[in-house]
Amino acid sequence: MVEQKAIGVVGWGVVGGGVVDILRDDGALFAERCGFQPVVKAIVTDPATTRRRPEEAGGALVSARIEAITQDPAITTAVHAVGGTTVAKELLVALLRSGKHVVTSNKALIALHGDELFALAAQHGVGLAFEAAVAGGIPIIGALRDGLVANRIESLHAILNGTCNFILTKMEQDGIGYRAALTDAQQLGYAEADPTLDVDGTDTAHKLSILSRIAFAARIPVSSIRTEGIQRISARDIASAKAMGCRIKLLAVARRRSAGLELRVAPTLVPLDHPLAAVMQNYNGIAIRGNNAGPQLFVGQGAGALPTASAVIADLVDVLSGRYQSTADHYQFFKAQQTPAFIPETEEMTGSYARFVVADKSGVLAGITHILSRHGASILSIHQGAANDQQQATVEIVTHPLSGGAFLAAIAEIDQSGLTVQPTTCLRKMDNAG
Amino acid sequence: MVEQKAIGVVGWGVVGGGVVDILRDDGALFAERCGFQPVVKAIVTDPATTRRRPEEAGGALVSARIEAITQDPAITTAVHAVGGTTVAKELLVALLRSGKHVVTSNKALIALHGDELFALAAQHGVGLAFEAAVAGGIPIIGALRDGLVANRIESLHAILNGTCNFILTKMEQDGIGYRAALTDAQQLGYAEADPTLDVDGTDTAHKLSILSRIAFAARIPVSSIRTEGIQRISARDIASAKAMGCRIKLLAVARRRSAGLELRVAPTLVPLDHPLAAVMQNYNGIAIRGNNAGPQLFVGQGAGALPTASAVIADLVDVLSGRYQSTADHYQFFKAQQTPAFIPETEEMTGSYARFVVADKSGVLAGITHILSRHGASILSIHQGAANDQQQATVEIVTHPLSGGAFLAAIAEIDQSGLTVQPTTCLRKMDNAG
Repeated sequence: MVEQKAIGVVGWGVVGGGVVDILRDDGALFAERCGFQPVVKAIVTDPATTRRRPEEAGGALVSARIEAITQDPAITTAVHAVGGTTVAKELLVALLRSGKHVVTSNKALIALHGDELFALAAQHGVGLAFEAAVAGGIPIIGALRDGLVANRIESLHAILNGTCNFILTKMEQDGIGYRAALTDAQQLGYAEADPTLDVDGTDTAHKLSILSRIAFAARIPVSSIRTEGIQRISARDIASAKAMGCRIKLLAVARRRSAGLELRVAPTLVPLDHPLAAVMQNYNGIAIRGNNAGPQLFVGQGAGALPTASAVIADLVDVLSGRYQSTADHYQFFKAQQTPAFIPETEEMTGSYARFVVADKSGVLAGITHILSRHGASILSIHQGAANDQQQATVEIVTHPLSGGAFLAAIAEIDQSGLTVQPTTCLRKMDNAG
Repeated sequence: MVEQKAIGVVGWGVVGGGVVDILRDDGALFAERCGFQPVVKAIVTDPATTRRRPEEAGGALVSARIEAITQDPAITTAVHAVGGTTVAKELLVALLRSGKHVVTSNKALIALHGDELFALAAQHGVGLAFEAAVAGGIPIIGALRDGLVANRIESLHAILNGTCNFILTKMEQDGIGYRAALTDAQQLGYAEADPTLDVDGTDTAHKLSILSRIAFAARIPVSSIRTEGIQRISARDIASAKAMGCRIKLLAVARRRSAGLELRVAPTLVPLDHPLAAVMQNYNGIAIRGNNAGPQLFVGQGAGALPTASAVIADLVDVLSGRYQSTADHYQFFKAQQTPAFIPETEEMTGSYARFVVADKSGVLAGITHILSRHGASILSIHQGAANDQQQATVEIVTHPLSGGAFLAAIAEIDQSGLTVQPTTCLRKMDNAG
């Protein structure tokens, strides 16, 4: 008879439900692979909101009170699958204080309160694992922490929000605008009724903060990440990107440079021949460049009950087998106290895209390229469309990498010079080498 | 002062050299991340063949004798970076017998002698780790074993040999034949002087055997993998694949079906919209479908000194931190005794490609499609080229999935019927859903 290890599950929603289901239905898998079987002994849930029926608990005690776990000495480890940052935080703190190891899927808590929570875990001699907090079923935390331990991470470019990626895919494939694509995403269950935290880039910034903490072993406050969402992306932007050989993705970027870390979340032109451009629908993708391993790409489902539960259980097995403790005891990122220097937007070096709407008369193109050139912008490609019936033409350019400051100054000068008839649209472009 | 942990390195070639270099030059990285620092105390190498100079050893003892490691009680763990299966096996056995944990990059040894070597490791109470044996710097062993522990693996499709992928990329990009591309690969260092084990698929089969052992927790003798190389792929095949919306890759395939495991290594048409089609040059790529995590893709450098050393050191840290032992003690694949049922080629279900060369006269196309239809082949797409000056035309078809037996019987009947003027060229096609 294989040993059973009792665990608790807090939150019986999408993720917690997936964890309970897998552990209940596929115990043999773990017996075979781990030499023990994790068994859910208690589920803490709000009876008013759970959609689960008691018979789905697989024999576990179902309770509204966290003490069902914190006061049960047979339970060493709890799955914390509660969203939000208020009650969710209280529950997580209660678990750690009671000396339980915790596996959480709550990215906002780790991103916003990681310092405090890791310190609390260390104080109580327990582990706090969070593979499921970033990129759902993709084992990216383990890959960064363990698989790439021999690497200094040079850069990280990632698509971390399935809702945004679904909307951008839909806009391209159906040639529709942002609003229509969002509505489709909501109807198909890929976007929530209030999609703000997804579409405005906040969720992506939380995940980038967590990944960067591990990649660079440093404190990365979410507030240090310049964050822009996809709400202003138009069907025209999508079509323009395509014409320039690119696809727009909401990209999380972290790059190590000699002066510090460059961090941002922004809609970005990704060249079609870069593998991140092929990450479509609600998938997540993470491109990492290690100094030894070189470029790596990880793609998979970033959300959903079973993919996220898959990541939660990977952590759970790590903790229950005793492997996680040596990680938690030593890895610097858990106790990272140093906040690195962050490179301001004006010093970011990237290729850039601009779409100018101009009066269709001679000298305008020369005027624009002259100003760009004077600010040090070297043009990689340029495209001028036919004039519309108001005698307005569109000029699109992509530049070689230059500083954000120089680029923005050039655009401001162009817009003030009277060469353009409406404010110029700008986007960043990812380097092919990213 | 951070604790130093003494290790030995056997083999001071490309991989062993990379390991020694990284540990010598970047000790601070490990001190920071692991709470200890692995230090190379002894290097065992053949002085006649190593290209390394003694001053590159970073203070380690350099010896021709394995006893420099096996008889040093301060060394708990050895890196084994020796190719081949004769002397390399003797050295690996000597290390295990002396009670040293071993991290190896030798895929052939693990694939061909894994049963014996894992048993020997268990007998001596040590771990035998092999992340570097498959896909170089991609942490795929860890992902399959730990990250996806909560998944039953449904299928695995992988590009595992950088030499073959480089040759196929070169053939497509330069429109050249196999021989010319191989010569280029050799000149650029991507293929060895004797490339047989790479181009004939043997190396890929070794790696597939190892991945399948973990994915399916079963013994997968290399001999059970039907293996075909890329030597017969022509420039014409590459162009035809493109015309059919595909790209030819040397694909390792493992699929779990109710009747058993389907395993093969073969040049395969991969649809251009599948992310594996975008894995170019000397990169490796692995697409895995887990029952819970869903489809996952991992891409990176599959060979080379630093990427492979990155994987070796990931294992080394796992072993030295004590994490690996709980894995080695329990994971079923280490002691897998059962050989699963293997599905024969005739029962494999895949889409198929055929290129018929026929006399350019009426009734031939009808004859071919009639025979295909009678054998149950449903045509997905068809393309007929203009006749050449010998009045011969080319007809290309791609079928929906059908059994290998039915497809081969249809082709045999067509070739015997006099409808074709030369033997028909056949290739498998990967399903988009793979």
